Amino acid sequence: MSRKGDRRERELTNLLDGEGFVVMRAPASGAATARELPDILAGNGDSFYAIEAKSRDTNRFYIDGVEIEALFYFAMMFGAKPRIGVRFDNENWKIIHPSKLYVTRSGNYRIDKEFILSEGETIDEL
Amino acid sequence: MSRKGDRRERELTNLLDGEGFVVMRAPASGAATARELPDILAGNGDSFYAIEAKSRDTNRFYIDGVEIEALFYFAMMFGAKPRIGVRFDNENWKIIHPSKLYVTRSGNYRIDKEFILSEGETIDEL
Repeated sequence: MSRKGDRRERELTNLLDGEGFVVMRAPASGAATARELPDILAGNGDSFYAIEAKSRDTNRFYIDGVEIEALFYFAMMFGAKPRIGVRFDNENWKIIHPSKLYVTRSGNYRIDKEFILSEGETIDEL
Repeated sequence: MSRKGDRRERELTNLLDGEGFVVMRAPASGAATARELPDILAGNGDSFYAIEAKSRDTNRFYIDGVEIEALFYFAMMFGAKPRIGVRFDNENWKIIHPSKLYVTRSGNYRIDKEFILSEGETIDEL
């Protein structure tokens, strides 16, 4: 992860913490098993989320279908709700369920700024 | 954590993985929030555990009550089952619910080898 990506992820962690969630970030390495882990787990006794965190300075990008499948798999195994956290430059974090995203013919998930800002939830709406 | 403690924890991670669990270890640092996190989360779609892992070469030791309270709190927030994983030298990992342990008058939890070997579950019994 880039330094900026790491800073953004800590930002999301702190925001969730501020909303009363207990947060656990995936270790940067040393997970000891080959499986892809979500970036953040957050629970408040009521809801429990597995979150892939993405920050970008572009208005549109794509997430590999394999990464989303891994998120769904992990969430199912942990009994968590799968979510994508998206942070565009100069915007707030938005949280969205992957199934709301447009999927390309090649199976990748499209993250479109306008769509995310209108359809995503803010942290305090979780 | 000591190098041996880290090796033991990876051992437990791999054992759980081998039994079909998806496992996430707490980051060694950089959790970004002050709260104490459990060492290992493990889920198989059926059960989801938050585990404090302890390895010792002595026959008896104590876990601080505060650490167990943090485990209960975290487990509640994540919807996980709280467990202690114990690995004595030359023995297999045993998993036990903290509430089965003897609590001292000062509020600490006693880990007694004989008791753990007889009352703890093996990984494949989880």
